[in-house]
Amino acid sequence: MPIYTPPLRDMQFVLHEVLEVGREFQALPRHAEVDADTVNAILEEGGKFASEVLLPLNQVGDEQGCTLDRETHEVRTPAGFKEAFAKYVEGGWPALSCDPEFGGQGLPIVVNQAFYEMLNSANQAWTMYPGLSHGAYEALHEHGTEDQKRLYLPKLTSGEWTGTMCLTEPHCGTDLGLLRTKAEPQPDGTYRITGQKIFISAGEHDMAANIVHLVLARLPDAPQGSKGISLFIVPKYTINADGSLGARNGVHCGGLEHKMGIHGNATAQIVLENAVGTLVGKPNKGLQAMFVMMNAARIGVGMQSLGQTEVAYQNALAYAKDRLQSRSLSGIKAKDKPADPIIVHPDVRRMLLTAKAYAEGGRALSLFCALLIDRELQHTDEKVRKDSAELVALLTPIVKAFLTDNGHIATNACMQVFGGHGYVREWGMEQFVRDNRINMIYEGTNTIQSLDLLGRKVLGNNGATLKKLGKMIGQLVEQEGVNEQMAEFINPLAALGDQMTKFTTELGFRAFQNADEVGAAAVDYLRVAGHLVFGYFWARMAQVALRRIEAGDTDPFYQGKLQTARFYFARLFPETASLMRSARSGAKVLVDTDQALA
Amino acid sequence: MPIYTPPLRDMQFVLHEVLEVGREFQALPRHAEVDADTVNAILEEGGKFASEVLLPLNQVGDEQGCTLDRETHEVRTPAGFKEAFAKYVEGGWPALSCDPEFGGQGLPIVVNQAFYEMLNSANQAWTMYPGLSHGAYEALHEHGTEDQKRLYLPKLTSGEWTGTMCLTEPHCGTDLGLLRTKAEPQPDGTYRITGQKIFISAGEHDMAANIVHLVLARLPDAPQGSKGISLFIVPKYTINADGSLGARNGVHCGGLEHKMGIHGNATAQIVLENAVGTLVGKPNKGLQAMFVMMNAARIGVGMQSLGQTEVAYQNALAYAKDRLQSRSLSGIKAKDKPADPIIVHPDVRRMLLTAKAYAEGGRALSLFCALLIDRELQHTDEKVRKDSAELVALLTPIVKAFLTDNGHIATNACMQVFGGHGYVREWGMEQFVRDNRINMIYEGTNTIQSLDLLGRKVLGNNGATLKKLGKMIGQLVEQEGVNEQMAEFINPLAALGDQMTKFTTELGFRAFQNADEVGAAAVDYLRVAGHLVFGYFWARMAQVALRRIEAGDTDPFYQGKLQTARFYFARLFPETASLMRSARSGAKVLVDTDQALA
Repeated sequence: MPIYTPPLRDMQFVLHEVLEVGREFQALPRHAEVDADTVNAILEEGGKFASEVLLPLNQVGDEQGCTLDRETHEVRTPAGFKEAFAKYVEGGWPALSCDPEFGGQGLPIVVNQAFYEMLNSANQAWTMYPGLSHGAYEALHEHGTEDQKRLYLPKLTSGEWTGTMCLTEPHCGTDLGLLRTKAEPQPDGTYRITGQKIFISAGEHDMAANIVHLVLARLPDAPQGSKGISLFIVPKYTINADGSLGARNGVHCGGLEHKMGIHGNATAQIVLENAVGTLVGKPNKGLQAMFVMMNAARIGVGMQSLGQTEVAYQNALAYAKDRLQSRSLSGIKAKDKPADPIIVHPDVRRMLLTAKAYAEGGRALSLFCALLIDRELQHTDEKVRKDSAELVALLTPIVKAFLTDNGHIATNACMQVFGGHGYVREWGMEQFVRDNRINMIYEGTNTIQSLDLLGRKVLGNNGATLKKLGKMIGQLVEQEGVNEQMAEFINPLAALGDQMTKFTTELGFRAFQNADEVGAAAVDYLRVAGHLVFGYFWARMAQVALRRIEAGDTDPFYQGKLQTARFYFARLFPETASLMRSARSGAKVLVDTDQALA
Repeated sequence: MPIYTPPLRDMQFVLHEVLEVGREFQALPRHAEVDADTVNAILEEGGKFASEVLLPLNQVGDEQGCTLDRETHEVRTPAGFKEAFAKYVEGGWPALSCDPEFGGQGLPIVVNQAFYEMLNSANQAWTMYPGLSHGAYEALHEHGTEDQKRLYLPKLTSGEWTGTMCLTEPHCGTDLGLLRTKAEPQPDGTYRITGQKIFISAGEHDMAANIVHLVLARLPDAPQGSKGISLFIVPKYTINADGSLGARNGVHCGGLEHKMGIHGNATAQIVLENAVGTLVGKPNKGLQAMFVMMNAARIGVGMQSLGQTEVAYQNALAYAKDRLQSRSLSGIKAKDKPADPIIVHPDVRRMLLTAKAYAEGGRALSLFCALLIDRELQHTDEKVRKDSAELVALLTPIVKAFLTDNGHIATNACMQVFGGHGYVREWGMEQFVRDNRINMIYEGTNTIQSLDLLGRKVLGNNGATLKKLGKMIGQLVEQEGVNEQMAEFINPLAALGDQMTKFTTELGFRAFQNADEVGAAAVDYLRVAGHLVFGYFWARMAQVALRRIEAGDTDPFYQGKLQTARFYFARLFPETASLMRSARSGAKVLVDTDQALA
C-alpha cells in the first residue's frame, strides 16, 4: 500500500517563513489571533486524519468504486467512505474556514487550503465529497438569500448535508449557453425544474442525510445563450420551514459513469423531474453566481494535483532508495549490496526532483493564492482587498492548469521510477496517474483556463493585472539583484520577466488583428506564465533558505531547498524557451490545415 | 465504440513515394519480385483483419481481462480473443515475413511492420500474443540448433504454437545480472530449470496448443552477473522427437498481474519447477541470444505506440468534427448550427496535429528501420548489410523511446479533445492512454533506451554511426538547400544537425570526466535525436509532396502533408531548444541533491 507522510515541515516553511502568514493575519481582524502554533496544530491533526483515515481507503475506493441501486436510485460508496465522512464531521473539519455566523470556525482559507492538500494526497476521490460541499457553501454564502443561508449553511458547515454543482448536460460542457434544463416558476415562489445533468461529481451517495444540488437551468422566456441561465437550489429531500427534512424531491441519480480514475467518487447522471427548487441570486444571472463556486473549485482542482504530486513523489522516493538494480555509472555506491539503490542514477533523480520541484512550487503558489483570498475577504483596506481579488483572478487559471499539467508530468515520472511495478495496480502508482488525469479536464479544461488567462485576465485589461504581478517579481529582482548567491535564481527569473512583457505585447498586437491568435498561443502562454510565477516562488524560497544558512541554521532542510531550487531553474524552467518559440509561430500553422485534418 | 480506418494511403505514400521500397527490393534477391500491388493488397487485407476482427475486441478485452484458473493453472483470455487468433492463423498471417524454409511466406520485414501497426491500432493487448511469438521465432531462427529449428520454427511460423520471453524476476528487471533461475544439466543433454519469472507478457493463454517459453537462467558454476546467463527453450508441453506434444512440463502460471492497461494480455508469473529445457546458443551467452529478440521487440514496442497514436488521432479527429460547442473566436463558422464544431478552435487543432505529426513521422521512421533490417538480412552487398545493421542499431532506442513518449503525449492530447467524455470508459480514449503507458516501460525503460543510445551507440563508437546518420541528413540538406520552397523545413533541420554535432562532442568530453554526465543528459539527448530524425523524414515527406504538387497532382493528400510538416516544424520541433539547454546543465544539479532527496 502506498505511504503518505503529511509534509508539515514544508508547509510550515511556506506559511511561516516564506509567506509569513502570522504578520499577514495581523491585518485581517477576524484572524488577528491566529498564531503559528494554532496553524501548526491544526495541520498536524489534519494530517493525521488524512494519513490514518483516508489513505487506507484510497485503493479500496479505486477497486470497489460506487454502485447504483437502480430501483431506489441510491448510491453506495466504497467500504469505509461513509465512516470516514462521519469521522470528518465529528472532528468538525467541514467547518474549518466557514463563517462563525453559521457555525463555522472562521479560520483562514489558507489553513483550510493546506489541510485540503493533505486530504487530496491521501484520497482525491473521497475528498471531492467535502470539496464540492464547500464550494456549494461558498456560492450560497455569497449569493443566497437570508432564508436560504439560514436553511442551508449550518448543515453544509457541519457536514450533515453535502452539496454539488450541476452544470454539464450531455450536449454541453464548456459551452453552458447551450443548456436546456428548464425551471418553471410556481405560484408559491418556488420553481419546478426538469432536465438531465451529467458528470455530477459527488452527485449521489450514502454519506450525508441530504444533498444540496446547485443547478443551472433556464427560466421560461430566458434569453438564449449564456445570458439566460439561472441558478437554483434543488435539495435531494425538500426542507421544511423548520429546517427538518421533507419529502423526497424529484431529483435522482440516473446512472454512474465508468471512468479512468477517481472511482471512489460517484460521477452521477442527475435526472430532474419536476424537482422543487428555489432561485439563487437574480434571474438569468446564474453563471455569475456559479462562478464563485467555479473559481474556488478551480483552485481546488489545482490542489488536487498538488496532493497527487506530493504523494506520488513520496512513494517514488521511498522506492528509489529501496530498489536495488544495477550499479552507478560513476562507480559502485553500495559495496555491501548486490546492486546499488536506483536513486544513484541521475535520471531517476531527475524524475524525483521534477515531482518535488513541482510539488513545492505548487504548494507555495497555491497557499499564496489562498492568502490572497483571505486578504480579499478580510482585509481592512479596500485597495488591498481589490488588488488581492485581481491578482487571485489572474492566478486562478494558472493554479488550475499549470498545477494539473505538472501533476500529470510528475505522477507519470514517479510511476516510471517503479519500472514495470509502476504499471501494476498493487503499488498504487498508476492510480495516482489515473486519478490526477481528470484534473486537467474538469472545472474548465486546461485549454479553457489558458483562454481565460490570456484572453480575459491578461489582454482583457491590457495587461494591467499582469503588471502588478510583474511589479511583485520586480521587487524581488531589485532586492536580490546584487546578491551574488542569488544570481543563479534571479537572473533567469528577471530574463523571463522581460521576455514575458515583450511576448505579451506581441500577442496583444496579433490578437488585435486575428482573435485566433489568442487560441493558438494561449496554452503555451499559460505554461510560460506558470514558470514565471514558480520561478518567483522558487527564488523566494531560495532566498529564505540562504538567509537561514547564513544565519548558521544547520537544518539540512534548507540545503535541500536550495538544491531543489537549482534543479528547478536548471532543468524545468528552460522549457519556457521552446514554449515561446512554439507560441510565436502563430495561428496560421494551426488554422490553415483543412487538408491535413480532412 | 472507437473507430479505426487502416491508414493505407499514408502507408502507400511512405512505402512507395518516400522509401521507394520497390526499387530497394530489386537489390534484395528474395524480395525482387515483390511489387507495389502485392504490398498494397496484403496491407489492405491485413487492415481488414485489424479493423473488422480485432477492433471490436479491444474494449471487451479491457473490460474482461484474463482469468486464471488456480487449480488447472490455465488462463482464459477475453471473449473472442481465441477465435480471432484462429482466424489469424487460418489467414496465414503469422507466416508473413517468416523464412520459407520453415513454412514462412518470406515477405519483407517492412511489410510485416506496416501490418503490425494496424494490429496494434486495433488491439494492442491482443497483438502482443503473436508479437511475442514472432520475437521467439526470430531468436530461435538466429540462435537455435538445427534440431530446435526443425522442432519449433514450423509451429511458430504457422501460429499453431506461440512463444514468450522470460527474463524478469521479482528482484531483477533492468539488471538481469541479478537473476537466480537455475538450470541443472541432465545426462541426456537437457536441463532442469527452476525459478520464478514475473511480468511475462502472453505468458499463458488458451489460444494455442503449446507455448514456447524462452527462459534466461544460470548454469551451475556460471560466472556471477550478466556474463553467467544462458538461454533455454522451455515448452509448456514437452515435444516428442516426431514433433508431437508430450507431457505437461514443469512450468505453469502462478498468477496474473492486475495492470493499468493491456488487460487483454495475460501478464503472467511463470513458475518453473524442474522444467525440462534445452539450451539455445552457447552456455553463458544467453543475453546475446536474447538481445536478438529484445531488439526486435524494442522496435515492436515503438510500433505499438505508433498504432495507439494513429487510432487515438482518428477518433479525436472524428469527435472534433462532430462535437458542437462554443463559437470560433474569429467568427461563427457553422451558422446553421447552435455552435461550431470544436475543430474550429486553434488549440483543438494543435492537439490533433500533434498526434497526426507524431503518427506520420513515426510511420516513416519505423518503416525505414524495417527496410534497413530487410537490407541487413537480404542485401547482396556486405557493406550495405553492415551499414544497415549499424544504422538500425542506432535508431532502435529512438524508435522505442521517442515513439512511445510521443504516443503518451498524443494519446493524452486526443483524450483531452473529448473533454469529460475522454475520461469516461465508453468512448475508449482513456484506454488508449492506459494501454500505451506500458510502452514507455517494458523492453527496457525509456531511460535505459537513452543510455543505450548516448552511452553505447553514440559515444561508444566515438560518434561513427551518428556521423553516418548525419551524412544521410546532410545529403538532403545539400540537395534541397537552394530550394526556396523547402527552406522552412531544411533550415531548422540543418541547424539542428549542426547543433547536434556540437552537443554530442560536448557531452563526450563531459562523459570522459564523469560517467554520470551520460545519465544526466541521456533522456533529453534521445528526444533531440528523435526530433532530428523526425525532422529529416518530415522534410523528405514535404519534398515528395511539393514535387507532386509541382507536377500538377491535385490530390489534397499532398497539401495536407505539407501542412502537417509545417505544423511539425513550427510547434513540435522547437522543443529541442529547451531539451539541449536542460541537458547542458549537467550532472551536478542532479547528483548533489542528497539533502533534497533525504
